[in-house]
Amino acid sequence: MPTVILEDESLRDGLQFEQKILTLEEKWSLYRLLAAAGVKRLQVGSFVHPKVVPQMADTAEFIQHVRDETPGVLITALVLNDKGLERALNCGLGHLSMSSSASNSHSLKNVKRPATESFAALLDLIRQAVASGLEVRAGIQCAFGCAYEGAVAEDRVIEMAVRLAETGANELNLADTTGMANPLQVRRLVAKTRAAIPQFPISIHLHDTRGLGLANMLAAYEEGVNIFDVSAGGLGGCPFVKGASGNVAAEDAVNLFEQIGVATGIDLKALCKVVDRYEEILGRRLPGRMNQVIKSQGISCE
Amino acid sequence: MPTVILEDESLRDGLQFEQKILTLEEKWSLYRLLAAAGVKRLQVGSFVHPKVVPQMADTAEFIQHVRDETPGVLITALVLNDKGLERALNCGLGHLSMSSSASNSHSLKNVKRPATESFAALLDLIRQAVASGLEVRAGIQCAFGCAYEGAVAEDRVIEMAVRLAETGANELNLADTTGMANPLQVRRLVAKTRAAIPQFPISIHLHDTRGLGLANMLAAYEEGVNIFDVSAGGLGGCPFVKGASGNVAAEDAVNLFEQIGVATGIDLKALCKVVDRYEEILGRRLPGRMNQVIKSQGISCE
Repeated sequence: MPTVILEDESLRDGLQFEQKILTLEEKWSLYRLLAAAGVKRLQVGSFVHPKVVPQMADTAEFIQHVRDETPGVLITALVLNDKGLERALNCGLGHLSMSSSASNSHSLKNVKRPATESFAALLDLIRQAVASGLEVRAGIQCAFGCAYEGAVAEDRVIEMAVRLAETGANELNLADTTGMANPLQVRRLVAKTRAAIPQFPISIHLHDTRGLGLANMLAAYEEGVNIFDVSAGGLGGCPFVKGASGNVAAEDAVNLFEQIGVATGIDLKALCKVVDRYEEILGRRLPGRMNQVIKSQGISCE
Repeated sequence: MPTVILEDESLRDGLQFEQKILTLEEKWSLYRLLAAAGVKRLQVGSFVHPKVVPQMADTAEFIQHVRDETPGVLITALVLNDKGLERALNCGLGHLSMSSSASNSHSLKNVKRPATESFAALLDLIRQAVASGLEVRAGIQCAFGCAYEGAVAEDRVIEMAVRLAETGANELNLADTTGMANPLQVRRLVAKTRAAIPQFPISIHLHDTRGLGLANMLAAYEEGVNIFDVSAGGLGGCPFVKGASGNVAAEDAVNLFEQIGVATGIDLKALCKVVDRYEEILGRRLPGRMNQVIKSQGISCE
């Protein structure tokens, strides 16, 4: 049976713009439920400035508390600069996610630096992290388009991919940061990227902003990608886009792969318990579908 | 540029389980907005017993009022029995949708008759309608699975398709009535059906219950289907499944096809005005995504 790896990012990408600041106890309970459901990779926070993303201020403390209790689970966090790398090293984390944007406008808006400059800094940062013994996932933000400038040149993405693969990073992540990808584009860009860096592990980070998350996931899978970022309940997204603009819902991805005969190692019902817990903590229903489908099992309409 | 036809069913499948009964004036205003947006096929109601689906009790009156004001727009309605056919003929409708279920349990539950019996009745009913000069779309409910009995034999679906194509009907509709299809299954069943009834027009009716609506739509398109049922806002679905279990949102389907270079003839922004109107009338946000994306244009997050 073919298998895929789902990396749950609900605790990072899912929560980062959430107004309600979760307590460490709440985050730990969510982490444990995710691990118990069989999720084997978890992006649990980011080492960014606490004033910019207050929800992530406790990332180091979070990690120190749980990192030894779930052997076999890969814990990772997002790092975007030197200061973040230092904090990550201090808390004993073994794996990091690091990225910069393929779009100049997005880079200027997000990190106040042109894309070329921020990419050069990323290459340095990854080399430092690798030299310190860390495993690194190197990411390309806005690989499928940018909300500010529209299309992003595929050649630029491929060039970044090739250079990132030479840094000593362990994996390349193509991110559809603002949920603009379509399935034909995903097939094309993944095929080009695989041709440019054959054998190098590629993962994909999708947002469901336009409802195409699962279609894009299937497109990437059929082009050979087998690591996917997801978020329990579909939690997350941009505070300016109302509705469901978070990552693909973890439980809906598990269902897709189950339906097409691909193992995820994740128990769908147990995963839905995490969604319940998020909904309880946040006091609202999340956009993922399978939790509702499971709850209504045996009842349906024509 | 390749083209597809989207049949909006928000006024029928979308509204049929809605608690609030819309007035004729509200329905007419929605119809006009849909037609103004460029929707060329509209399923506007059903001739079923008014006590069973009170929302559809005014279907004849609805049709008589609008049928001459939008030339070029195909108006259709659902008919499931003799009585319904008589009412449809009386109101001067030229096109009908008629269907029965591939699942025995679903047929027993829905029309209190075994599937074989209800299929035989459907064949007769279509022949009567064709003899009366009507155009008919012949549908197979639960073609991709049944919430009561799970998998539905593909051979049964193909056999039904072949017999329906011999009745004089103009089109075959494969319906994923309870939103259980997956993209690989859609590719397989559509390919088999096309092989069994080559050249016969095939349309597909999808529900987004498990978030796979657009992925299934793309799968069907890539196997040669070019007529798709949609519902403005993703309105509709089963009252027992909370969340978004209606048809694929019309505006999200338009976006998918625009993104992959396929013309729908529908203006996305104008279509979103229909979604606004539905949300205003129903007092809640609908699950479709593109209306929110368009409203937040120019603003996005990383």
